[in-house]
Amino acid sequence: MSKHIVILGGGMGGIATAYDLRKLDKSLKITVVSGRPYFGFTPAYPHLALGWRKFDDITMPLAPLLSKHGIDFINENGESIDPDANKVKTTGGKEISYDYLVIATGPKLVFGAEGQEQHSTSVCTAEHAMELNRKLEEFYKDPGHVVVGAIPGVSCFGPAYEFAFMLHHELKKRGIRHKVPITYITSEPYVGHMGLGGVGPSRRLMEDTMAERSIKYIANVKITKVEPDKVIYEDLEGKTYEVPCKLSMIMPRFMGPDVVASAGDKVANPANKMVIVNRCFQNPTYKNIFGVGVVTAIPPVEQTPIPTGAPKTGMMIEQMALAVAHNIVNDIRNSTDRYAPELSAICVADMGGDAMGFFASPVLPPRSVVKYKKAVWMHWFKSAFEKYFMWKVKTGDVAPFFEEGMLKLMFSVHPIHLCKDCAGSPGSPC
Amino acid sequence: MSKHIVILGGGMGGIATAYDLRKLDKSLKITVVSGRPYFGFTPAYPHLALGWRKFDDITMPLAPLLSKHGIDFINENGESIDPDANKVKTTGGKEISYDYLVIATGPKLVFGAEGQEQHSTSVCTAEHAMELNRKLEEFYKDPGHVVVGAIPGVSCFGPAYEFAFMLHHELKKRGIRHKVPITYITSEPYVGHMGLGGVGPSRRLMEDTMAERSIKYIANVKITKVEPDKVIYEDLEGKTYEVPCKLSMIMPRFMGPDVVASAGDKVANPANKMVIVNRCFQNPTYKNIFGVGVVTAIPPVEQTPIPTGAPKTGMMIEQMALAVAHNIVNDIRNSTDRYAPELSAICVADMGGDAMGFFASPVLPPRSVVKYKKAVWMHWFKSAFEKYFMWKVKTGDVAPFFEEGMLKLMFSVHPIHLCKDCAGSPGSPC
Amino acid sequence: MSKHIVILGGGMGGIATAYDLRKLDKSLKITVVSGRPYFGFTPAYPHLALGWRKFDDITMPLAPLLSKHGIDFINENGESIDPDANKVKTTGGKEISYDYLVIATGPKLVFGAEGQEQHSTSVCTAEHAMELNRKLEEFYKDPGHVVVGAIPGVSCFGPAYEFAFMLHHELKKRGIRHKVPITYITSEPYVGHMGLGGVGPSRRLMEDTMAERSIKYIANVKITKVEPDKVIYEDLEGKTYEVPCKLSMIMPRFMGPDVVASAGDKVANPANKMVIVNRCFQNPTYKNIFGVGVVTAIPPVEQTPIPTGAPKTGMMIEQMALAVAHNIVNDIRNSTDRYAPELSAICVADMGGDAMGFFASPVLPPRSVVKYKKAVWMHWFKSAFEKYFMWKVKTGDVAPFFEEGMLKLMFSVHPIHLCKDCAGSPGSPC
Repeated sequence: MSKHIVILGGGMGGIATAYDLRKLDKSLKITVVSGRPYFGFTPAYPHLALGWRKFDDITMPLAPLLSKHGIDFINENGESIDPDANKVKTTGGKEISYDYLVIATGPKLVFGAEGQEQHSTSVCTAEHAMELNRKLEEFYKDPGHVVVGAIPGVSCFGPAYEFAFMLHHELKKRGIRHKVPITYITSEPYVGHMGLGGVGPSRRLMEDTMAERSIKYIANVKITKVEPDKVIYEDLEGKTYEVPCKLSMIMPRFMGPDVVASAGDKVANPANKMVIVNRCFQNPTYKNIFGVGVVTAIPPVEQTPIPTGAPKTGMMIEQMALAVAHNIVNDIRNSTDRYAPELSAICVADMGGDAMGFFASPVLPPRSVVKYKKAVWMHWFKSAFEKYFMWKVKTGDVAPFFEEGMLKLMFSVHPIHLCKDCAGSPGSPC
Repeated sequence: MSKHIVILGGGMGGIATAYDLRKLDKSLKITVVSGRPYFGFTPAYPHLALGWRKFDDITMPLAPLLSKHGIDFINENGESIDPDANKVKTTGGKEISYDYLVIATGPKLVFGAEGQEQHSTSVCTAEHAMELNRKLEEFYKDPGHVVVGAIPGVSCFGPAYEFAFMLHHELKKRGIRHKVPITYITSEPYVGHMGLGGVGPSRRLMEDTMAERSIKYIANVKITKVEPDKVIYEDLEGKTYEVPCKLSMIMPRFMGPDVVASAGDKVANPANKMVIVNRCFQNPTYKNIFGVGVVTAIPPVEQTPIPTGAPKTGMMIEQMALAVAHNIVNDIRNSTDRYAPELSAICVADMGGDAMGFFASPVLPPRSVVKYKKAVWMHWFKSAFEKYFMWKVKTGDVAPFFEEGMLKLMFSVHPIHLCKDCAGSPGSPC
Repeated sequence: MSKHIVILGGGMGGIATAYDLRKLDKSLKITVVSGRPYFGFTPAYPHLALGWRKFDDITMPLAPLLSKHGIDFINENGESIDPDANKVKTTGGKEISYDYLVIATGPKLVFGAEGQEQHSTSVCTAEHAMELNRKLEEFYKDPGHVVVGAIPGVSCFGPAYEFAFMLHHELKKRGIRHKVPITYITSEPYVGHMGLGGVGPSRRLMEDTMAERSIKYIANVKITKVEPDKVIYEDLEGKTYEVPCKLSMIMPRFMGPDVVASAGDKVANPANKMVIVNRCFQNPTYKNIFGVGVVTAIPPVEQTPIPTGAPKTGMMIEQMALAVAHNIVNDIRNSTDRYAPELSAICVADMGGDAMGFFASPVLPPRSVVKYKKAVWMHWFKSAFEKYFMWKVKTGDVAPFFEEGMLKLMFSVHPIHLCKDCAGSPGSPC
């Protein structure tokens, strides 16, 4: 009888795993469980916030998509996991038995600074981005100070940089740039760190780019409070400062959602409730549970004075999905071959007219390959990739051969590799 | 009857205002009052000091020039202003009544460090530059240490950088560069600040350029004393240091000349005796008094540990002149339209072989446009601009249309813009 | 009767002096004294360590080489010098009388950190490089942490940088780069200082290059101890730290060998036993004794918090040899013309795929010319220069005219110049 694989989450990680599994084995029974009825292209949420994209441009309804590929879809969130009974319960009360469980829910957002959720807006969900867009339309009529930032514990800094640069571009186009002081306030030890310990000379590049764009930056501090008209932060000595602010976009930190915690301490990392995985993104205790995407517990690249985490970029997530799909199928087929994702990160920060791109492989140093580029074509490359990705999702082909070929050609990188010993921290060499 | 506009000063600001007024209205009576009988192209004074230009190359007698355009010329300095009686008295005892007064005298130089005036030479006037040229000819025969620098309160750092780089170039050509240690000592918090809070990555660019040219730099200090063979400076903790020095070029700071002070505290800023103006470069108390150029009181771009001021570059001065000319003519014509200068600064530091250029618009952050370039063609561009400017002065066309077109084309900047509300600090958004 | 010139040392300095002398005067009796039977191209020793060159590629037996040019060769080391009797004694007991003595022995290596000699390996001799190559072959099978570094007092940092970058390249090629954390630990106040106070923006360039290559750096510290599995260093406050280390390449510092010390305190600098020379590389006390190469006592470019020395690069050594040969021949011919070397340093750090080049002339600031470049062609330039140099040694033409021409053409530099007054520190302006 064919095995049943349940996937919690219908985002980049969930969909990529579902498609990769389907591609590897036509006979598998696959069920995607997601309360959100659509797939959204997360990297374009800052564009949604600025009105450069419409909601329909960067989202796709899940139901017709999945059914076309013979994947079942339950439009409810997972509520709890019983890893001993191999069962998932949904918010609607359904009980689903699984042979393999893939947790790819994405994160729960934590607005750790006082007043952050009320007075600031993130770009982490399509809903937030659209709310920010409405706020911006008001703001343009009577502009003032803007703060873009990231609270302690953030692991995803890219969208903050992008939003600051793109806002600069938009304000210039509207001829009101000189009326809007923009301040970037971050928990990174320096700008360009990006939770990655920097990528090549990213610090220099970012400092220069901020200076060119007249964006002030304050690094190595904790945003503690967001008020309607100011942002308050604290330095390492505990001294507090405030910056006037009419509009802010401050990144929240991420933790695992409650459904992960429900599976107990052997699945959920006690510190942040994210899914504990080994090098092959398999849970070390429950061998039939896997994690994919932002919900997995990956150690930080380096200790920073104020805590920061390692980002999990789209490319890393696709690599995790591909490795997990292979590992599940090989387990079913009694093959002992296991794969680990390379965890190489490409990160393109759009800046409106041009864009800045970084590539680090692997993400955790020492790195074999580091590349960076600031260019106009990078802006178009990012837009092209978005269209391409939406097409991939539509056609159901998440890691087509020609893309792997590109990756190999451009960066001499394979997305996944055979791993002799899966025991070990995710991202550490096999 | 046609109105009488009196302009104090025959430098860049005075001449530009006179020409712009004449262009806007052929019937106006315009009088330029200047003790100095010639117009001098200030940005080329460092070139005069190095003997790369002759006095006649970069100056032009005012009398024939102004008469050709129907502008009266009184070759005396202004001695006092009576703003209530609308009268100016000259050093020769003439009393002139005005309908509108434009103060464009340029600065009074303040040699704030002990011994600075005796033992150092500036490039702020043609006379100083020619004296420095004579000193240099002696120096080349028996070279030694050189100090180039700027005392606290300086707002014009460009010529100091230029002089250091150009001297390097000249010494190399003479084959004695290795006998001349050059030290740049400045009140800027870092090199490349330029009283502007930096322009894009100007700090990096300047540090690199200094290192390439083997020029040592000491920033964030106060030069307190200049002796015949050394320069003494003090750090923020009050510790003093000395640098050996056979020849020095140390920039003085600027204040308003006595004629401004004579107009009282409503015209002269008590702190520095410069002309108090609003966004439209009109005095807020005496609506028929305007300020143009270095003599206007513009707030610093940012607070620095040791005081520095914002430079008023040629482009800014031309913009002020154009705005003031429009504002006077509109006032005469009972139009309520008032203009504010954009205050965008282009700043090209010649370095002999090549040059470094910065463009910031507006000068006071947040800036819409920031550009920078270090290139050989910039050197030629600067020389070409000098010739072009001298031609403009000769022909009487200070802001020809094609130049405005260039500005718009190259930087998307208009030199002046309509200002809904003139009340406010000069340079702040209308 | 023809004069007898004895040269201690058969390396770059000794051979260059011998050839230059022979070229200037066919009748001179020249004897080279060297315990090492071969000439080795020192700059390629890092390549030997990595197995990119074989021993035979970069060495040449001295005996046939010298006899071809009519130069006597004694294959023994100098043991002592009696400068009053104009005699040298060799380790084999031979006594040799000289009219002129050129000391070009190269340095004695000082492994100043505890355990450095046992647990670390240098690339300063061909033997060390080959030992390091054997260690590396083992290391590749079971890789781990690598430390590359320089202890206090080092004057030759180039090979350390080169080795780190070349190892990165080799590890990448072998696909194991991500298993090898590389740490660069140095006594320089910052990376890119190179004992030269930096060359142009070398700090920035080096920091960027290290970041791109995922090499961590720790500067301004003293390596105090090397253990089989770790390296221990101390900061300026005396705090100690340790870095895990499976393989290390740590540069020793240099002093003069015992044979120099035997000549007494008027020949050997008491501090480091190197040869005391004036601007013309002549000993001020014994006018018929000269120094060439690394064994000469040149003052540091600048005081650094932790002592470092000025490197003596191949180009500087060739310039010293050329000056000394001229000075000896002029003395014989009763000409009073004396020459000083320009002491301009070219320094190309190979990085495998590309290379970084610096040029400073003169080395001791103020410098007339500073150039730098990072490019792929620099890598090939360095390899080509090696082949060219080996060909020069073989044909006996150490400073052929076309090379001098190139130098003049590319950098406007003459290798040597007439010196009016030889009394003064080597490298100071005549």
